Amino acid sequence: MDITIQAMSGVISATGPDGGDPLKTPAALCDFSGGSHLYGAVMTALFQRERTGHGQFVDVAMLDTVIPTLSTVIGAYYFGDKTVPPRNGSKHPALSMAPYNVYLARDGYVAIICTNEKHWLSMAGAMNREDLFQDPRYGSMRERAAIMSEVDAEVTAWTSVRTRAEVLAALQGAGVLSASVRDVEEVLADEHLHERDMLHETDHPDWGEMTLMNSPLNVALGNKVIPMPAPELGSANDGVYGELLGIAAPELATLKAEGVI
Amino acid sequence: MDITIQAMSGVISATGPDGGDPLKTPAALCDFSGGSHLYGAVMTALFQRERTGHGQFVDVAMLDTVIPTLSTVIGAYYFGDKTVPPRNGSKHPALSMAPYNVYLARDGYVAIICTNEKHWLSMAGAMNREDLFQDPRYGSMRERAAIMSEVDAEVTAWTSVRTRAEVLAALQGAGVLSASVRDVEEVLADEHLHERDMLHETDHPDWGEMTLMNSPLNVALGNKVIPMPAPELGSANDGVYGELLGIAAPELATLKAEGVI
Repeated sequence: MDITIQAMSGVISATGPDGGDPLKTPAALCDFSGGSHLYGAVMTALFQRERTGHGQFVDVAMLDTVIPTLSTVIGAYYFGDKTVPPRNGSKHPALSMAPYNVYLARDGYVAIICTNEKHWLSMAGAMNREDLFQDPRYGSMRERAAIMSEVDAEVTAWTSVRTRAEVLAALQGAGVLSASVRDVEEVLADEHLHERDMLHETDHPDWGEMTLMNSPLNVALGNKVIPMPAPELGSANDGVYGELLGIAAPELATLKAEGVI
Repeated sequence: MDITIQAMSGVISATGPDGGDPLKTPAALCDFSGGSHLYGAVMTALFQRERTGHGQFVDVAMLDTVIPTLSTVIGAYYFGDKTVPPRNGSKHPALSMAPYNVYLARDGYVAIICTNEKHWLSMAGAMNREDLFQDPRYGSMRERAAIMSEVDAEVTAWTSVRTRAEVLAALQGAGVLSASVRDVEEVLADEHLHERDMLHETDHPDWGEMTLMNSPLNVALGNKVIPMPAPELGSANDGVYGELLGIAAPELATLKAEGVI
């Protein structure tokens, strides 16, 4: 189960608010990580069979596939001289980058990350805070990380009086990596995801208008399928029992009447 | 970046303590989801090329690959008549399963999930709480989910006075899905992960004893590589400049002395 692998892999222990309790994420990353890695391993074996004529044993464990996602947490453990890093909310797991966090906006939250000096200079410029990049205490990533609470407070003072759209227009216009924290309703309405056919509107017989998802694997010759609601129970009975298996209509009616099918 | 895709995909919005602020998970699920899906798509195209002789365009977007991990959150949105489900800690995203949570133990936390009646009966038995499965208010998943706080309190009363090992011995012995919430140090010491060679001890020239990770893809004929520390800067100079490119030793020494290499 996703929740047990989140527990065993270290995801739950690493996730949580500053100094708070460990937390599962509702994103079923382990379920899907297991499947997508297994798919790649199976395709590798099939490709090799084409070349060598030999089949082979394929072995993928869900738990194995999740370990690499903890890379930064493992790095923080070694950087901290083999100390388990405390949970620290949405901050960098090793507390080595600032700005890097989820920041309050007027109408929600935004994620912002400055991975280098250029990002930071662009960000201070977008905030009209030239004073900050003249302040020697803000002069390098290491120094900003050391005063992370102050950096985050400066950023929040700017973001919290602006809408997400205003924040992102200013930051993305300046080349700063940033994104809106979108809820599931906003994600399902994403025009790019629909344009790519990753999301697809359908009229479900029971649920009405509904957004279904497609496979994220786009391989041009792969005949991508339009996602459809699952067929209703028994809806293929006539086709399978009647046409494929040749059971005549009166007998089919009897089987239905007797509750066999 | 992982943090921006966590924001755009809905992961951050869905993650967080009961009624609390949205939260990023330090597990870089988006980074690795993008790569593992792309690998599968590339292998699919290579396999198809073996059969058809034609190459093709492969297109995988990080954001697309994360959407399926939100399936239960999307389900909760539709089950709630198109209402964005609130953040609810480590509980089931649609609040439709109980027991399902991360529970306090004497020495940490455990994750427990009962997906059907058999699990629940086994669990009540392991807790020596036959009274609970005779209580009609606990008679079905739907009824237990409706009194989730009470169910979780009963479970916590039992787990919180036991160590994780005691809880898991009782539950796993009874066939109940459960796991220890392990921190990164415990994960790196996991004997099964070492036995599978997913984790590998090495003696790093700068860091000393260190656990490196391997690829989670095990394909028997794939010649799995033993993970090694990255080579030090310039350590291959003699081999590449000297042996491969045929630059004589005196010239190599001059290039080094002049800081060219």
